[in-house]
Amino acid sequence: MNRVLAHTGAQYPIIQAPMGWIARSQLASAVSNAGGIGIIETSSGETEVCKAEILKMKEITDKPFGVNLPIMFLRDDAMLKFVCESGVKFVTTSAGSPAKFVGPLKAAGIVVYHAVPTVDAAVKCVAAGVDGLVVEGAEGGGFKNPEEVSTLVLLQAIRAKVDVPLVAAGGICDGRGMAAAFALGAEAVQMGTRFVSSAESPVHENYKNKIVASKETGTYVLNKKATPCIRALKSGRMDEIYAEGRMPADIFSGIRDVYFGGNMEAAPALAGETVGLIDSIKTAKEIIDETVAEFFAIAGRMGGLANGHTFG
Amino acid sequence: MNRVLAHTGAQYPIIQAPMGWIARSQLASAVSNAGGIGIIETSSGETEVCKAEILKMKEITDKPFGVNLPIMFLRDDAMLKFVCESGVKFVTTSAGSPAKFVGPLKAAGIVVYHAVPTVDAAVKCVAAGVDGLVVEGAEGGGFKNPEEVSTLVLLQAIRAKVDVPLVAAGGICDGRGMAAAFALGAEAVQMGTRFVSSAESPVHENYKNKIVASKETGTYVLNKKATPCIRALKSGRMDEIYAEGRMPADIFSGIRDVYFGGNMEAAPALAGETVGLIDSIKTAKEIIDETVAEFFAIAGRMGGLANGHTFG
Repeated sequence: MNRVLAHTGAQYPIIQAPMGWIARSQLASAVSNAGGIGIIETSSGETEVCKAEILKMKEITDKPFGVNLPIMFLRDDAMLKFVCESGVKFVTTSAGSPAKFVGPLKAAGIVVYHAVPTVDAAVKCVAAGVDGLVVEGAEGGGFKNPEEVSTLVLLQAIRAKVDVPLVAAGGICDGRGMAAAFALGAEAVQMGTRFVSSAESPVHENYKNKIVASKETGTYVLNKKATPCIRALKSGRMDEIYAEGRMPADIFSGIRDVYFGGNMEAAPALAGETVGLIDSIKTAKEIIDETVAEFFAIAGRMGGLANGHTFG
Repeated sequence: MNRVLAHTGAQYPIIQAPMGWIARSQLASAVSNAGGIGIIETSSGETEVCKAEILKMKEITDKPFGVNLPIMFLRDDAMLKFVCESGVKFVTTSAGSPAKFVGPLKAAGIVVYHAVPTVDAAVKCVAAGVDGLVVEGAEGGGFKNPEEVSTLVLLQAIRAKVDVPLVAAGGICDGRGMAAAFALGAEAVQMGTRFVSSAESPVHENYKNKIVASKETGTYVLNKKATPCIRALKSGRMDEIYAEGRMPADIFSGIRDVYFGGNMEAAPALAGETVGLIDSIKTAKEIIDETVAEFFAIAGRMGGLANGHTFG
């Protein structure tokens, strides 16, 4: 039995990442309705808007969905309390120690997965009682651990130390990546950049088109020696920040102008290395259906190698 | 048919990476005798020693092996000419454009694979006539492209653009990684750090033991804004270089003191992210036998998912 499906009740073990401002009901309901697991973000800090988006999800989909709680970004307990009382069944926590959050969430009957970038963090989170882990490889977009470890290595390293279900995040946007992740011990995948570029994503077409046009070398990890360390699309302004090695404190003030105004120089346009693999804008249903079909095709091909005890 | 096996005549599509000073006949013959593909390095620049090592290989193993020619590191055509006349059947080229090397090597009946860190380089090399590519993900140790792209993403991105056989390099040290690489479209894997830490590796036990003891976060990419950019084990001296952001020009003068004297602060001890996965020193035969067995076990498990149309 796939434990992520058992925990969530979803049809497919494909989770949509909780991108600030972007992971709201329009996108998340499309993912959930296609059989994946849509997630509502709260990292934007727009508490009332996010509460309304969570309530809206219950109106527009009868499929499973979840909420992300980025611990260090939450000003107070308001969102935690709301989620505990909301009937939400699945929460991913991130950005901080989940120790204080696990008790209230589990008391409310909620399954809790925490996002981790290292083996040490994974072991601590499992000791704190989380039900599963989102394994965040260095390939992914957004806020990063400056100690970069790739999904290929990190998944195996964490799998060797803990027994909870693992969700592979970072570098995955299709059935090939999903098959690789399962070979490495994952029971689900999380995709961010792929869904940012989907038809139902609310972002400006300039952002989607830049993801589609970018090469595999189209992102930078910036600000590795300060906070926050991020992975974002290359741009004129990001080139300067990369050359200088540090990022102004107010760099995110223009983020909504990037996301919704289409001004790609206004702030870092968060994205992962999969920009080099994404070559068209598809609906969430197309993405999920194609990923599942490709996953099984590759799994079947691998089975053929095993049956024939051959390498090709 | 697996094209890497067809090209090399080896039993298993597992290649030993060409580490300078380390990839010599003691290690390479152990790999070839175990059914893998041992490679003799020439990047040390010790031309006469390397020629002797190539001749020695023909005495101590009757199994297939290869030679690496790092184009930019070769002072003249001496090594190229020697290899063309030596009866060697398989060459990997690296560090530079293979365009001038492909003609003479192929005229000598030699199969040529070139190591590439980007899609653009891959496309150019295939146009230049190489028979296959070593796809060098950012996880790997040693000399790196400062534009880091992980094996997970790079393999897929190159697979989408070229039809030649691909060898996955970087982040792979066992059957899990090999299964993931094959799921992504590779037909072979190359392991460096794993064989540096093997019983037959000629390096000092301090180097092997540090690989075994290191976590997945145990390496740095150093000197990203200059040449050469490298991935190496963390150490007191490397911490300083990382903090400063640049590397002294004579940094490698003490490399043999690291490798063979066991002074881990004398120079960068090149290694990849797989240090976090390697937890014991094994013989080349144990490494290869276990990798093959694990590969088929995982491939079989993936086949089971396909057969049952299930995710676990």
